Amino acid sequence: MKIREAVLTPVAFADPPLLNAMGVHEPFALRSVVQLVGEDGTTGLGESYGDEAFLTQARKVAAELAGWDVFDLPGLRRIVARTIGGAVYADQHGLTGGFSVGKTLASVYSLFEVAALDAQGKILGRPVSDLLGGRARDEVEFSAYLFYKYGAHLDDDRADDWGEVLTPDQVVGEARRMVDTYGFRSIKLKGGVLPPEQEIEAVRALAEAFPDHPLRIDPNGAWKPETGIEVARQLDGVLEYLEDPTPGIAGMARVAEHAGMPLATNMCVVRFADLAPAFRANAVGVVLSDHHFWGGLRDTQALSVACESFGVGLSMHSNSHLGISLAAMVHVAAATPHLSYACDTHWPWKSSDVVAPGTLEFRDGAVKVPDGPGLGVELDPDALARAHEDYLRCGLTKRDDVTYMRRYVGTFEPNTERW
Amino acid sequence: MKIREAVLTPVAFADPPLLNAMGVHEPFALRSVVQLVGEDGTTGLGESYGDEAFLTQARKVAAELAGWDVFDLPGLRRIVARTIGGAVYADQHGLTGGFSVGKTLASVYSLFEVAALDAQGKILGRPVSDLLGGRARDEVEFSAYLFYKYGAHLDDDRADDWGEVLTPDQVVGEARRMVDTYGFRSIKLKGGVLPPEQEIEAVRALAEAFPDHPLRIDPNGAWKPETGIEVARQLDGVLEYLEDPTPGIAGMARVAEHAGMPLATNMCVVRFADLAPAFRANAVGVVLSDHHFWGGLRDTQALSVACESFGVGLSMHSNSHLGISLAAMVHVAAATPHLSYACDTHWPWKSSDVVAPGTLEFRDGAVKVPDGPGLGVELDPDALARAHEDYLRCGLTKRDDVTYMRRYVGTFEPNTERW
Ligand SMILES: [Mg+2]
Ligand SMILES: [Mg+2]
Repeated sequence: MKIREAVLTPVAFADPPLLNAMGVHEPFALRSVVQLVGEDGTTGLGESYGDEAFLTQARKVAAELAGWDVFDLPGLRRIVARTIGGAVYADQHGLTGGFSVGKTLASVYSLFEVAALDAQGKILGRPVSDLLGGRARDEVEFSAYLFYKYGAHLDDDRADDWGEVLTPDQVVGEARRMVDTYGFRSIKLKGGVLPPEQEIEAVRALAEAFPDHPLRIDPNGAWKPETGIEVARQLDGVLEYLEDPTPGIAGMARVAEHAGMPLATNMCVVRFADLAPAFRANAVGVVLSDHHFWGGLRDTQALSVACESFGVGLSMHSNSHLGISLAAMVHVAAATPHLSYACDTHWPWKSSDVVAPGTLEFRDGAVKVPDGPGLGVELDPDALARAHEDYLRCGLTKRDDVTYMRRYVGTFEPNTERW
Repeated sequence: MKIREAVLTPVAFADPPLLNAMGVHEPFALRSVVQLVGEDGTTGLGESYGDEAFLTQARKVAAELAGWDVFDLPGLRRIVARTIGGAVYADQHGLTGGFSVGKTLASVYSLFEVAALDAQGKILGRPVSDLLGGRARDEVEFSAYLFYKYGAHLDDDRADDWGEVLTPDQVVGEARRMVDTYGFRSIKLKGGVLPPEQEIEAVRALAEAFPDHPLRIDPNGAWKPETGIEVARQLDGVLEYLEDPTPGIAGMARVAEHAGMPLATNMCVVRFADLAPAFRANAVGVVLSDHHFWGGLRDTQALSVACESFGVGLSMHSNSHLGISLAAMVHVAAATPHLSYACDTHWPWKSSDVVAPGTLEFRDGAVKVPDGPGLGVELDPDALARAHEDYLRCGLTKRDDVTYMRRYVGTFEPNTERW
């Protein structure tokens, strides 16, 4: 089926003041939604980043897609390469590693690849998981994604209903609510916010409160290698994996040499070209895939085979996202046997969506693979219009946790390799 | 669609006395053809090895497939693993590396995966290349696959119409006929038959006669590493790549250190577990994929991404095969952008097939990707019956080039690392 047009809609949705090594989440998270409209009226949905730097590249590609056949993914790759050329999309938050032409191509390609697979599935009457080789599992498990957080955004006096979370007790309380509500069976704490001793204390409190839940902590490279080694020592036997304790392959390799648990990353291995140096250096035990920057669902599956070949595990990274992305994550995880860790998701931190409710539900921490054709989710046009209104109204055009953090703490500098 | 039954048919077809490091081809090559028959009557075709050791495993799996859904490839993998357990399929010719449980699972899985993809494509009305992500190219280039050969089989006084090929002039003559007939634009010589000086001489003669054709030689590990280094030196600038000069990753790494051209292999890297040691040792520059033992078409694509990530090229290996396998090779090569070398094929060496003629044709050394649903080839039931009759009549149940060679040369031992 040939594409008539590709409609790209930037959207925003409310996001709590979640803390990380780069600062704090602004009041709105930005995303982009693409609708590939075929000549026969079939629509394919995709979702990705919503900052202006990404939209600029995605818009250029969207304008070139009329006449392209949705079954021709190599053709899509050529269109993306030709259209954005040597442009480099650099996000502002710096939480998913470096920027490059290759990662930019993979990111922009991914938005449209997912939409193409959704359209293919709708045309063929099959779920996307079937187009990816079929389901290795019928539901996909996610982990509770805990954040340290402030109680309220700066221009809003009312605390959000999660309240402030800065102490071990508050972390356990947040985990309790999340586990009770969604049934998560694994727990991840976003660290890199407080000095490592305090974050270790929070993890210990979680281990005591949830003795049967595998635990992870992710300081986003906030520690020096020595600190990473020391934290690994103190949390030996407590963590399922330790995520990005320190930046860069060399630093990760140093920590890995001494750590009792596998090191995971979504920062030092973010494109296929990173595999060789990271694997040669034995720097990582788990790669956190993310189809949004790994080049889509099919390349995420190829990443899985590369990891498996080198004895490296595969889990899944998450940014703030909506239902189209969750559906894509669920389909690819279901069709990728080696992706057997509980995946990350920011899902509990949002309160609105652009897809019609009902299909994507968490039970015992897992989401059933949608059975309908394509991604199996339906766009809600009114919700999309509202989310686009919010985008226009919020005035944000990039994610900049650092600058926003400086409004809370004037002297703030990113915590990268701080401790 | 659920499978009603899987029909496995061993077949044989006439094969000339082609020479290699392990001896000489027997008068018949063996293959297996599988027909997956669905509850709705849809049929999916697959083709693979036909020796008894392989058939034994494939038969066990075929008997377990009733009720399996052809879209459930992870389910197929589980059925194969459960059914054949820790069995190891060991071919007798030793030309595609070692044997292992993993390679056995991948080989048996592949036969049925190809048939499942053919059935999927027929159900969905799409060519298999579309199920693999779409075509990066509309036609797939193959290389002329030259063999030293005897003029006739032992129990047949008439020379076949290729005649004896043992001298450089005869090699050039064989190449000339093959290039004239099929339009091949690359040439490969199967070596490991004569002392390396003579094979170097043949390659030089080819280079002179075909100055614009990329050349390869493949002695199947017949040389010691020192010899490999010396041949690489003498043929520097003449060869596109040097295939398996010596056995094993360590030996290949030694040759690779000194060789000016990339080393290719289908012997020391034959499963995903081989990638890590081979890539860490920089032993190979080109992996020769072969969906028959790499776990099918989808895993061949994953192999491609793993190779690309490590800066390793991808080409394609061939055993004697029929049209179902050629169609599968063409679809996967078309949908795998990184697979950009001309692929190997034994096609010119056979004179019969089990598929209806017309779809698979060589023009300028390339085969157009079939446009029909699935693999796009049709089984000819009469031809299949004849080929099965030939299988029963020929009495062969394994490929054993060594024993047959000893009927020509009583003292023959395989040439592995001989020179
Ligand atoms: Mg992370
Ligand atoms: Mg070979």
